[in-house]
Amino acid sequence: MSINIDAVGYECEPYENSWDERDVMLYALGVGASTSELEFTTENSIGVDLSVLPTFAVIASGRPPTSLWTRIGQFDPAMLLHGEQYVEIHSNLPTAATAVSRTKVTGIYDKGSGALVVTETVTKDKGSGVDLFTLKSSAFIRGEGGFGGERGGPIKAVELPPRDPDLVITYETAFDQALIYRLSGDRNPLHSDPGFAELAGFERPILHGLCTYGFTARALLNEVCDGDVGRFGLISGRFVSPVYPGDLLSVSIWEESEGALFRTETQGGEIVLDMGVFRFRS
Amino acid sequence: MSINIDAVGYECEPYENSWDERDVMLYALGVGASTSELEFTTENSIGVDLSVLPTFAVIASGRPPTSLWTRIGQFDPAMLLHGEQYVEIHSNLPTAATAVSRTKVTGIYDKGSGALVVTETVTKDKGSGVDLFTLKSSAFIRGEGGFGGERGGPIKAVELPPRDPDLVITYETAFDQALIYRLSGDRNPLHSDPGFAELAGFERPILHGLCTYGFTARALLNEVCDGDVGRFGLISGRFVSPVYPGDLLSVSIWEESEGALFRTETQGGEIVLDMGVFRFRS
Repeated sequence: MSINIDAVGYECEPYENSWDERDVMLYALGVGASTSELEFTTENSIGVDLSVLPTFAVIASGRPPTSLWTRIGQFDPAMLLHGEQYVEIHSNLPTAATAVSRTKVTGIYDKGSGALVVTETVTKDKGSGVDLFTLKSSAFIRGEGGFGGERGGPIKAVELPPRDPDLVITYETAFDQALIYRLSGDRNPLHSDPGFAELAGFERPILHGLCTYGFTARALLNEVCDGDVGRFGLISGRFVSPVYPGDLLSVSIWEESEGALFRTETQGGEIVLDMGVFRFRS
Repeated sequence: MSINIDAVGYECEPYENSWDERDVMLYALGVGASTSELEFTTENSIGVDLSVLPTFAVIASGRPPTSLWTRIGQFDPAMLLHGEQYVEIHSNLPTAATAVSRTKVTGIYDKGSGALVVTETVTKDKGSGVDLFTLKSSAFIRGEGGFGGERGGPIKAVELPPRDPDLVITYETAFDQALIYRLSGDRNPLHSDPGFAELAGFERPILHGLCTYGFTARALLNEVCDGDVGRFGLISGRFVSPVYPGDLLSVSIWEESEGALFRTETQGGEIVLDMGVFRFRS
């Protein structure tokens, strides 16, 4: 056991990340926006202003300094799985900016077969000082459980209604989807190299969980917010199964007065993103 | 008439352009390389080194300073069409570098309905001083002909054999192909904005000619050079009709001892890139 539970409460030093219009458009293409969403994929179409997809927040924050993970412990990075992701938008993201983020370890839980590390990141626009977004993320580290800690709960507990969804939106991922998405920053070869993917126990490279997340958020933005990024407040969900590039992603949506609940499945009916919560911006 | 034929012989001051691995991989995705060409689309696959597609040269050179076109004359940029493109590779392109280029006006011809401006660009690696490539390009400026100049000939005259081609390689362009390709630098809204494309007389945005060119060069690289960029020497061709994103591109190849001749057509049999010449590196 090399996870340090005393890391709970630790906050790393502030770190910066910059992006420009090209990064914003490349991310949009990476999560499947195309010719029908020119406000996210072009900066110079007549009568259209470039907007930033809200889930670009997971890229815009940048990566915490390695000191954060050194504090949490020593483990094989190949054993780390993305558990849940929560994104809360405070202000529309600028199309080009430098952001300053701080990340804090808010919990380390003992799930038996592994440790669950929960972090929270708060990001501001460096130039204006405006609060941009808050991220909460959990990482499941296989093989690092059994240390007698608390089991903890989900970042955002939710039960999906037993009734049929109000909407089901289906998007197709491309065979080269992960190759495009990875240029936004996550170059883990699990998503691109067949040899590496096989060593990791997959039949071929799997799509980035955050790519599935971005497709899902586009469905919510387009269908629940009428494409208005200003209405997009909070999204949270749990990654439960891998997606392969080329898969269809069907987002089932249950509308609520304050937003929606959702779940994402592949063409075979396998749930890939579960316990989904969406909230309008308050 | 505002084309200055005295510009022939003018060479602009040297200009620089830098690129990195992300630019190289984004270009490869832009011209359709995907999961079966990981040497062009990933930098960290086991046993695979990132290589640069030879036609990345048209991006790597960067853009000449505006003084070049000021010297050539004043005209509506919307009247400019890409005529021919010639790329001669002297050394394999580095995956990250700064290049220094010089561009010279080598000819201005009177085609009656327009003026044809031919330029030549010589590009070196700034760090090593190594010669990287030579580009020759012709731009047809509609409405600027009739000034009584020479008619000139093609950059590289060629007659395709009357016999059936030895090989026909067909690639599919994606509906968002131009949206990906444009992030390599050519943001002309003719390739992305339906409103702008309609004003320019097209039913919808057309693919970049140099994107079609990149697909065609991939076919030659994969089929005539067995994927070995070191064998890729020279490619030249003339743009004759527009391609729409989503079109199929079929490259007909006639093999020769020193390379091949080729032509690219869409699914309807319309020739889009003609008078194609390919030569092995000498």
